[in-house]
Amino acid sequence: MNELLEASGSTAVAHPAYYRGMAEQLTIVEVSPRDGLQNEKTLLTTGAKVDLIEQLIGAGARRIEAVSFVHPKMVPAMADAEAVMEAIPRRDDVSYIGLVLNPRGWTRAKAAGVDEINVVACASETFSEKNQNSTIEGIISDSEEVLAAAKAEGVPATLTITVAFGCPFEGEVDPDVVIDLARRGAAAGATEIAIGDTIGVGVPTQVTHLIDGIRREVGDGVGLRAHFHNTRNTGFANAAAALGVGVRVLDSSAGGIGGCPFAPRATGNIATEDLLYLAHRMGYETGMDIDALFPVASFLAGQLEHDTPALVSKAGNFPGSLGK
Amino acid sequence: MNELLEASGSTAVAHPAYYRGMAEQLTIVEVSPRDGLQNEKTLLTTGAKVDLIEQLIGAGARRIEAVSFVHPKMVPAMADAEAVMEAIPRRDDVSYIGLVLNPRGWTRAKAAGVDEINVVACASETFSEKNQNSTIEGIISDSEEVLAAAKAEGVPATLTITVAFGCPFEGEVDPDVVIDLARRGAAAGATEIAIGDTIGVGVPTQVTHLIDGIRREVGDGVGLRAHFHNTRNTGFANAAAALGVGVRVLDSSAGGIGGCPFAPRATGNIATEDLLYLAHRMGYETGMDIDALFPVASFLAGQLEHDTPALVSKAGNFPGSLGK
Repeated sequence: MNELLEASGSTAVAHPAYYRGMAEQLTIVEVSPRDGLQNEKTLLTTGAKVDLIEQLIGAGARRIEAVSFVHPKMVPAMADAEAVMEAIPRRDDVSYIGLVLNPRGWTRAKAAGVDEINVVACASETFSEKNQNSTIEGIISDSEEVLAAAKAEGVPATLTITVAFGCPFEGEVDPDVVIDLARRGAAAGATEIAIGDTIGVGVPTQVTHLIDGIRREVGDGVGLRAHFHNTRNTGFANAAAALGVGVRVLDSSAGGIGGCPFAPRATGNIATEDLLYLAHRMGYETGMDIDALFPVASFLAGQLEHDTPALVSKAGNFPGSLGK
Repeated sequence: MNELLEASGSTAVAHPAYYRGMAEQLTIVEVSPRDGLQNEKTLLTTGAKVDLIEQLIGAGARRIEAVSFVHPKMVPAMADAEAVMEAIPRRDDVSYIGLVLNPRGWTRAKAAGVDEINVVACASETFSEKNQNSTIEGIISDSEEVLAAAKAEGVPATLTITVAFGCPFEGEVDPDVVIDLARRGAAAGATEIAIGDTIGVGVPTQVTHLIDGIRREVGDGVGLRAHFHNTRNTGFANAAAALGVGVRVLDSSAGGIGGCPFAPRATGNIATEDLLYLAHRMGYETGMDIDALFPVASFLAGQLEHDTPALVSKAGNFPGSLGK
């Protein structure tokens, strides 16, 4: 932009980032290969998944939720987890995350050589039953066992608390249940706690309330991360709220793929390119390149045979797109 | 929701609104009849506009930007401003706003009997030239004249500062230019200052910076209002940021119609139904009914012959839609 302004003879105006003072780092966890693809009707080949992951690395992604070690009958889209892990390039500066739901999944994840794992807790009894045929207690107990094992092996492990902002069956979810699950995860060895708005119903006041409550419970030694869906157009407001209360790790998916099966016409995860637009203009550095992501989203749109909900690719970057 | 929980025997969990304490009022300025329709390819008949406005009132809208008194050659979609004003129901509890760009427009607005006016300033020289064939100084001078006249007549008048967050031609806009235009507007008699993200490039740090700066300059006696587009998925984050710094008047359009001509595939104004979802769940009261807005957006989609970008209507309200 400054070059354009200089070329046009205008007076350069500082980037709005200066409003915040010094730049801060934001880490994006790119979840399109896992949470993104898991909810799509079209299954990608192993080769296409590897291609996607390589493209994401090319755009600067360094933490990537690559695979899920769930039973293939539960989530057919993730049946080739081992094959994907074997084929993707291993680099010291790229960390691959595998989703692990139980001790069996942990065994598979360890054998596949993931760099870190993501285990889950669920904040609603009905969702626990319908989604994993278990209970809140059953799921967190399994995850505690896996967290302890990962800690013993020195593998970083995130506990993601799903439906933390609302349940499609029960409605409002008690924030104290979420905060208590976070406490148990940290006690069991989680290096990071993530709150997940699985069905995209959350609002910024919930983000602030939950993050403040979890931080009080687990202290500063445990990382905080958030996972938002833009199903009701609150995903980016929630991301900004999370940044506002000090969260520096956010999940997103290229193109915004990953619509929830409960709301088939709605958008999915917050789109990485749109999150980058928001974050970069607010003065955060992510190490990712927004323009390099546009072709990745196009690749995904082609593979999935539908448009993606991301907007910056349609409207154009700003001010970067001036004169293009 | 509470009824549903009681019916199902679950323990009721408080609405996230409680996180904020006492409910506060938020006023929505419904702009679909003016800013919404102005950028659409399809022209609505006068009858359809009147129908739209009546439906909006039915859904609880009480401040409505109904018409624009610009030259019909400039904006053909608004050529029937007088006819619309004559046909819509006049009620003590509904305030109709007319957009006024110059003294000639003010004469028309007064004759048509609008309840309040909206005048503009523009924060970019190039946008002033391309959009109104004028200069920053030329536009604010005209508006100062209109503001003084409106004050003399006791007609409430808002100064909206356009491209306050970025210009499609110049890139970044100097926030001090925006703040100085606000100062001049307030001095000339504006009862309210609005900042407009005309092309949908703003981010929350800009909202906070501009609102803080304007409030310091104009004091508490002048109302503050904001106008966001969701072109790059930052519109609702900006709305939440505006609420966070005390703005209690926000523009939005039913369905989110009103895409900018510079970004034809992108979404337009932030959608009223999605803003209501965000605001109500954050504990604000608006007097508007989200479910009653869904058919209004459907009506608009039918009239304009395209889908609207609003999301809550697609995904379903929450937790209100449970069991429906």
